[in-house]
Amino acid sequence: MNVWNGKRRRIYMQEVGTRDGFQSEGTFVDTREKIALIDALSDTGLAKIEVTAFVSPQAIPALRDAEAVLRQIRRKPGVVYTALVPNVRGAERAIDARADELNLVMSASESHNLSNLRMTRDQSFHGLKQVAALAREAGLPVNISLSCAFGCPMEGDVPETTVLAWSQRFIEEASAHGVTLCDTTGMAHPKQVARLTARFVERWPDTELTLHFHNTRGMGLANVLAAVDAGADRFDASLGGIGGCPYAPGASGNVCSEEIVHALELMGYDTGIELGALIDAATRLPALIGHDIPSQIVKAGRRLDLHPLPTDFAAIRERALQRDATASARN
Amino acid sequence: MNVWNGKRRRIYMQEVGTRDGFQSEGTFVDTREKIALIDALSDTGLAKIEVTAFVSPQAIPALRDAEAVLRQIRRKPGVVYTALVPNVRGAERAIDARADELNLVMSASESHNLSNLRMTRDQSFHGLKQVAALAREAGLPVNISLSCAFGCPMEGDVPETTVLAWSQRFIEEASAHGVTLCDTTGMAHPKQVARLTARFVERWPDTELTLHFHNTRGMGLANVLAAVDAGADRFDASLGGIGGCPYAPGASGNVCSEEIVHALELMGYDTGIELGALIDAATRLPALIGHDIPSQIVKAGRRLDLHPLPTDFAAIRERALQRDATASARN
Repeated sequence: MNVWNGKRRRIYMQEVGTRDGFQSEGTFVDTREKIALIDALSDTGLAKIEVTAFVSPQAIPALRDAEAVLRQIRRKPGVVYTALVPNVRGAERAIDARADELNLVMSASESHNLSNLRMTRDQSFHGLKQVAALAREAGLPVNISLSCAFGCPMEGDVPETTVLAWSQRFIEEASAHGVTLCDTTGMAHPKQVARLTARFVERWPDTELTLHFHNTRGMGLANVLAAVDAGADRFDASLGGIGGCPYAPGASGNVCSEEIVHALELMGYDTGIELGALIDAATRLPALIGHDIPSQIVKAGRRLDLHPLPTDFAAIRERALQRDATASARN
Repeated sequence: MNVWNGKRRRIYMQEVGTRDGFQSEGTFVDTREKIALIDALSDTGLAKIEVTAFVSPQAIPALRDAEAVLRQIRRKPGVVYTALVPNVRGAERAIDARADELNLVMSASESHNLSNLRMTRDQSFHGLKQVAALAREAGLPVNISLSCAFGCPMEGDVPETTVLAWSQRFIEEASAHGVTLCDTTGMAHPKQVARLTARFVERWPDTELTLHFHNTRGMGLANVLAAVDAGADRFDASLGGIGGCPYAPGASGNVCSEEIVHALELMGYDTGIELGALIDAATRLPALIGHDIPSQIVKAGRRLDLHPLPTDFAAIRERALQRDATASARN
């Protein structure tokens, strides 16, 4: 297979902007606006939307309306509405608000897990096993997002064996339905992505694997393609490319949904997405979050969004052709 | 061969920032500063540097010091110092100032050539043939840069056959040593790049082929990799990612030299570049051009430029481990 030619191969796109994106915004996006945006996103062809996170409203005030949002969005059949939950309390709230899936999170790096979640990885795992049990009782699938799966900003490289070992524990001991390998701070590179993805897909062909890349160092799309080539078909991305990277002020965060879809569709992949509708949704973001968005597609338009000829084009051509006429008259 | 794993394959990097980049800046960069920057770039391992353009000083005042710059830079053996020339007058100036190569330019799109150069493509070709003859007399190789090789912002798609036909005319009728396929406004996508590159390499294996991509729609690195996979080994890029795109205000222009090198080196390719020195050179740009640069590597650092642990990390870990001790004491 030739990765550059998609030949209508199906790729599933998952939106994380309303969670991963909004969570890092200083501005609180009005609950009705959030709901309206998610309702618009539901009609674009996304496979999954990470609606919100059931975390402490003190810790992340931007998502303090998690219940209201998840309860009040329109549910489009076929779209999975997932929510991030850090613990049993969050899981209870998410189940109560009718999440379709619970997304659990811990880090593959001990330093990052301690710094971020104040627990050792073992402590996180044991806590999340209880969350998974709760989800099982409620009949909900569980996805585990492994942060720093491609490197830790404090430790550096995270061994492949470590990432696979934590994946295995969640799949075997916590019955995880899906695993997301997260490139939390944009350290993934295509060679690494191709190898880790291939090993994962070979080992767990029946587990739903998602790749979550950041474009912090400009490798986002290349990493997506490396993963596609290695057998992955499911990607997180963020509308407008919103979602910051706390370790690199000014750098891009999550890969941008409309950029990834734009590229994949041009290459012949079938993302199921109506790109125009996705771009329309992205265009609403600056008014909601109060600043410009990284999206190159919103700035530059699609590849074939053409520009008019110069207003004096006819005159330019006339003068050019006149030179030929003059020259041949001389001969 | 697996494109994701470079296995020390040699890739040649060509810097266009001092021409393509500076040309679109409002600020005139001081001649001595230009020379100092190019001298620094000469020591980074670049295969070629497009030093300047011998164009009308009225048309592009930013490069009005072309002679002084090309004459006064230090010539590092092995580096090709090329200059863009639009016509015979420019070629004479460039030859006089000791360019190693002349870079000619026309567009593969009739509308773009007329809009930009005020000539039909045929008129451009006939003019450039005279320039090529002049270069031949002076013993200098000629490169032809074909703008809009992957699409025209006014016409849309430019047929592959058109691009190949103009390449053929320059190779066969003007003895061009090299051809650069330019993605002038960021319309190239990897499927198209893989195909056109493969056809070119198959047809003219002995012609020096360069790919010149813009990152306008976020596909820059992916396009580089698609071209590498199809047999290309030579790429233009711009320090700091400078160089605008007149059709998309705010969007990225040229692919960023240090981003491309950073990615290729991580993947195991041999770019011959000392990345630290290249990043140091890019870091000098904001002071020269008076504004921030797009480079994600300058903003975020290299993949393994690590961040310190939180200052209270020892206390965090201590408290976490204490919970385990308390729990096991209870059992």
